[in-house]
Amino acid sequence: MQFSGADIAAMEDRFRVFFVNALSGFKSANLVGTTSADGQDNLAMFSSVVHLGANPPLLGMVSRPHSVRRDTLENIAATGFYTINHVGAEFFEAAHQASARYEPEISEFDAVGLTRRHGELHPAPYVAESPLQIGLAHRQTIDLDINGTCLVIGEVVEVELSEAAVGEDGAIDLGQLGSLVVGGLDSYHAPEQLARLSYAKPDRPLRRLAG
Amino acid sequence: MQFSGADIAAMEDRFRVFFVNALSGFKSANLVGTTSADGQDNLAMFSSVVHLGANPPLLGMVSRPHSVRRDTLENIAATGFYTINHVGAEFFEAAHQASARYEPEISEFDAVGLTRRHGELHPAPYVAESPLQIGLAHRQTIDLDINGTCLVIGEVVEVELSEAAVGEDGAIDLGQLGSLVVGGLDSYHAPEQLARLSYAKPDRPLRRLAG
Repeated sequence: MQFSGADIAAMEDRFRVFFVNALSGFKSANLVGTTSADGQDNLAMFSSVVHLGANPPLLGMVSRPHSVRRDTLENIAATGFYTINHVGAEFFEAAHQASARYEPEISEFDAVGLTRRHGELHPAPYVAESPLQIGLAHRQTIDLDINGTCLVIGEVVEVELSEAAVGEDGAIDLGQLGSLVVGGLDSYHAPEQLARLSYAKPDRPLRRLAG
Repeated sequence: MQFSGADIAAMEDRFRVFFVNALSGFKSANLVGTTSADGQDNLAMFSSVVHLGANPPLLGMVSRPHSVRRDTLENIAATGFYTINHVGAEFFEAAHQASARYEPEISEFDAVGLTRRHGELHPAPYVAESPLQIGLAHRQTIDLDINGTCLVIGEVVEVELSEAAVGEDGAIDLGQLGSLVVGGLDSYHAPEQLARLSYAKPDRPLRRLAG
């Protein structure tokens, strides 16, 4: 079945939001933890975290400046730090609930029943239940004038995860950690490994390293 | 186990690449199809496609200007169009093989055994085997000076997928389509649905819409 740009423009608003949100494919499900200048913490779901580079270790995430996640952007600007926490199968419903529009004075940690964990390097709270917790120092926010969103760029300053999930070559076994993905706005999925493949070269067949 | 920013900086280069590439969580596996001004087509793996907005329907993807994917950027600049094709379980090994550094005069379609499909709206080739094929008009490329990568932004002008995968509310069932994700650089996974959840509100419990 084919949809043109005109077909998409003619969709009812909510239909289009569901439809277009799935086009990028499955997205990583992450909770972003921040705290305000006066210590009020905040938790927000982001499905737009993207790898930008390994050296320095940079992650990006897309946000709407005037959406419910405004608290997150303001807190990052105020404190300079935030955390990215992978969502696991044991708490994906609590994580989804954190996307509700709570009043600013309510911490989503308390509202949805997740546990704060504080490190020693920065003030942003981690989600203790998360199998992979990342602390980031804010480096840059780039406004995307084309649609009023922005790309928040941070440098990884701390990572907490199970030692058993880190392979000898540095690869992290996300399946073992149980990191989830989200399809569209609200469909949570656990990825099952098909195979790990060798580095691709033009004149050599692929080998299965696992799976 | 905890890693600091200094620990990451001290990692051996290849170890760090594996480690940091997994931090964003699972990534969507997509093949990007382009053609040059003189009709030489190209296929490249991207795991950095990100949803930017639904109206207009915009997708972003991160690329290194001077990496193996240079062909892709040059072709997009030359023709103004490209395709994003979800990778499915039936051809993920061919898709991974397309990431090898083939000479510019070799089409990855031929080298890895995937099938070109041409639409009527633009010259960029689709991957016929893909369960969700998206045609995009290039809108903007933003250089990320922080590490020399760039964010390529395109507007969706065409989508091809099975009608059965589009729900009454517009949500696309990516599990039914069989869209895959990649962990780190080389681990391919098929997401299994846990649940689809209702829109979250502060004063209302979540309902399971599916799963």
